[in-house]
Amino acid sequence: MSSFIPVDPDSHFPIQNIPFGVFRRNNEDKVRTGVRIGDFALDLGVLASKEGGLLFGSEFEHVFSQGSLNAFMGLGKAAWKHVRDTTIALLDTNNTVLRDNAELRQKAFSQVSEVTMLLPAVIGDYTDFYSSRHHAENVGEMFRGKDNKLMPNWLHLPVGYHGRSSSVVLSGTPIVRPSGQTKQDDEEAPKFTPCKLLDFELEMAFFVGPGNELGSPISIDKADDHIFGMVVMNDWSARDIQKWEYVPLGPFGAKNFGTSISAWVVTMMALEPFASQGPSQADPPVLPYLQDSKPGNYDIHLEVTIQGANMTAPHPVSRTNFKEMYWSNRQQLVHHTVTGCNMRPGDLLGSGTISGPTPDSFGSMLELSWKGTKPIAFPNGEVRRFLQDGDTITMTGFCQGNGFKVGFGGVSGKILPAKI
Amino acid sequence: MSSFIPVDPDSHFPIQNIPFGVFRRNNEDKVRTGVRIGDFALDLGVLASKEGGLLFGSEFEHVFSQGSLNAFMGLGKAAWKHVRDTTIALLDTNNTVLRDNAELRQKAFSQVSEVTMLLPAVIGDYTDFYSSRHHAENVGEMFRGKDNKLMPNWLHLPVGYHGRSSSVVLSGTPIVRPSGQTKQDDEEAPKFTPCKLLDFELEMAFFVGPGNELGSPISIDKADDHIFGMVVMNDWSARDIQKWEYVPLGPFGAKNFGTSISAWVVTMMALEPFASQGPSQADPPVLPYLQDSKPGNYDIHLEVTIQGANMTAPHPVSRTNFKEMYWSNRQQLVHHTVTGCNMRPGDLLGSGTISGPTPDSFGSMLELSWKGTKPIAFPNGEVRRFLQDGDTITMTGFCQGNGFKVGFGGVSGKILPAKI
Ligand SMILES: [Ca+2]
Ligand SMILES: [Ca+2]
Ligand SMILES: [Mg+2]
Ligand SMILES: [Mg+2]
Ligand code: NI
Repeated sequence: MSSFIPVDPDSHFPIQNIPFGVFRRNNEDKVRTGVRIGDFALDLGVLASKEGGLLFGSEFEHVFSQGSLNAFMGLGKAAWKHVRDTTIALLDTNNTVLRDNAELRQKAFSQVSEVTMLLPAVIGDYTDFYSSRHHAENVGEMFRGKDNKLMPNWLHLPVGYHGRSSSVVLSGTPIVRPSGQTKQDDEEAPKFTPCKLLDFELEMAFFVGPGNELGSPISIDKADDHIFGMVVMNDWSARDIQKWEYVPLGPFGAKNFGTSISAWVVTMMALEPFASQGPSQADPPVLPYLQDSKPGNYDIHLEVTIQGANMTAPHPVSRTNFKEMYWSNRQQLVHHTVTGCNMRPGDLLGSGTISGPTPDSFGSMLELSWKGTKPIAFPNGEVRRFLQDGDTITMTGFCQGNGFKVGFGGVSGKILPAKI
Repeated sequence: MSSFIPVDPDSHFPIQNIPFGVFRRNNEDKVRTGVRIGDFALDLGVLASKEGGLLFGSEFEHVFSQGSLNAFMGLGKAAWKHVRDTTIALLDTNNTVLRDNAELRQKAFSQVSEVTMLLPAVIGDYTDFYSSRHHAENVGEMFRGKDNKLMPNWLHLPVGYHGRSSSVVLSGTPIVRPSGQTKQDDEEAPKFTPCKLLDFELEMAFFVGPGNELGSPISIDKADDHIFGMVVMNDWSARDIQKWEYVPLGPFGAKNFGTSISAWVVTMMALEPFASQGPSQADPPVLPYLQDSKPGNYDIHLEVTIQGANMTAPHPVSRTNFKEMYWSNRQQLVHHTVTGCNMRPGDLLGSGTISGPTPDSFGSMLELSWKGTKPIAFPNGEVRRFLQDGDTITMTGFCQGNGFKVGFGGVSGKILPAKI
């Protein structure tokens, strides 16, 4: 498989990937929906239009001209495969339709350096899970000791909470350090202060495709029909605010000041070759509604870097892999709907912090600096326990194929000082 | 103040109210946006149109023809007051514009018995608080004992959690009894069962008007500018599912199978005459960002009834009042945004269960039956500890004026049997 569009071997976006996204050319207002190959964004709305030759068939004429991917996500697997296969064929080295039509190419392709990316979907609801056993055990050990690392429910169900969809933002959006209530253990009353324990959480998240009706759960054998694709996510977290607020109803202001996602949604079709078997769930056995016969994980290499205001380059602070997760996308979706909750196309479900087994593979500063007790050293002599103003955090992810990568690009965000 | 539309003195919808809602005539697909007076729904889209005479001014021509109230909610207080005052003037006994134009009346008015109500807004995010001290103390006493009734943070901040916006449904929608994981204290492992402790929660909720930018909190003195109006809400709850799942990230499947709201949004303008001072917040003093100089509560009489499948009439099980709340709408909104969270027009913020000081004023079966230890007796001899299949729960609310009521109508829902 190769394309007439040149793609660097290290690119995250070869013809084997073809992720979906929403963008506009920098000199235009028009919002476009399309795919990425190499350093180009391809507007599928142009190819789908009458003017472009209705290249996906007439039923797709308007799907890619709606300013978001929700409509396409809602069409389901057969439509996703049809559009992806057709796009791959149109990009093939030997296909003349686009290759030899300079006018159509001009209308449909943009250099990625000349576009601004937008959120891929209108996110009706965003949910965050807590599905890495290493992460849950690390946090549990820090706050409850080695003998009570996991809560009693953790191995029985994918613990999750409803998040805030309004504050899900695209990679590149700066994040203002939040202020809020915090209380030290030795203080009588809380104070109002800027967050002193600002953190990232390395996560991945998936977009829901077709939804389900309220009162009609999705079963595990049908779950794949409802999962469109994935992004890398940074679930920014204010540890000191969270500590004071979260009992008994869960994290609130500590998590709703920004959640950043990468711009290009990598489809499950592109990830399928990298599926991998998760850890055994035999001890204790999971309930039948969560039992899955297929591999539920993916071999996705993940990296987090920090570049402080006074650093000349990003410095890696964590490397891990998505295949370490205990609970899978499918299990999260099934559990989310089991009491009858309805999903809608474009809903976003986050994995929870992805931590590996070793200290250099932890997915948050809380774990990397072990609650601030083990500062991380940087090449310029600085150290970090938690995040500082001016820090830019970047997370990247990719699957390694034979001579190519299927990647997510990355998600970046810079910390701005608190306003109060 | 009186109208040429006849209004029963016991009606919740006299000319002093004028709540907003979304509806369609039963024989039409067209979605209409308007107000209610007496037993009529008035389509403001008709009055606002060129055909109707642009009765609110040309800038309002399209505001009421968008299928939801979000656009109107986003316009802010001056626009809300202009539309409400103009509508009240148009409905006045002595105003001839509508009264004497049979063709316009025909187009604009519908009998409420001939319309189907729809959700008043596209709810981007739904949040639920926990702001009744009586409720929090009741639950605390049941599960932690008299000496630890309130969590340490409860008197310092309005505790809340992000809810599920997709499953907010309109009054009248049946609710399927959820199934999920539950575990008795004496059991080794959880089971998958239908919920055995199904409950209602009597709440009110407000719709957000204009939003704020991510990173820019709303201050207490500006909070009123962002609050459009209120509804009565039933936050259906699965107590046994909640008990097993909610530590440490809060309620999830126990709360996302349905949250019912009343159809007509009563504006803060209509509620203003019923404002009342909440309890003192001097001990402990709340932090300055939450201190409010104005009365934050409202004198709203609330009632809950249950009608079982074998009962001939609804039976009241609770009577209470919204003025009992500890944290106000304004304080909830301010705290929600204090870390930088952005609001959008149409967001919904729930009060939390509204319980009064006496056992007949508690807002949930959990409290009314005191964890099932004090069954509630019904006239036909039946008893209830929690809700049974076939039960219809109805919540109503109104403010008592001098010779009129400003009311919410009600929110009803019937329990259907579990599917598994
Ligand atoms: Ca997280
Ligand atoms: Ca509630
Ligand atoms: Mg977040
Ligand atoms: Mg609910
Ligand atoms: Ni939402």
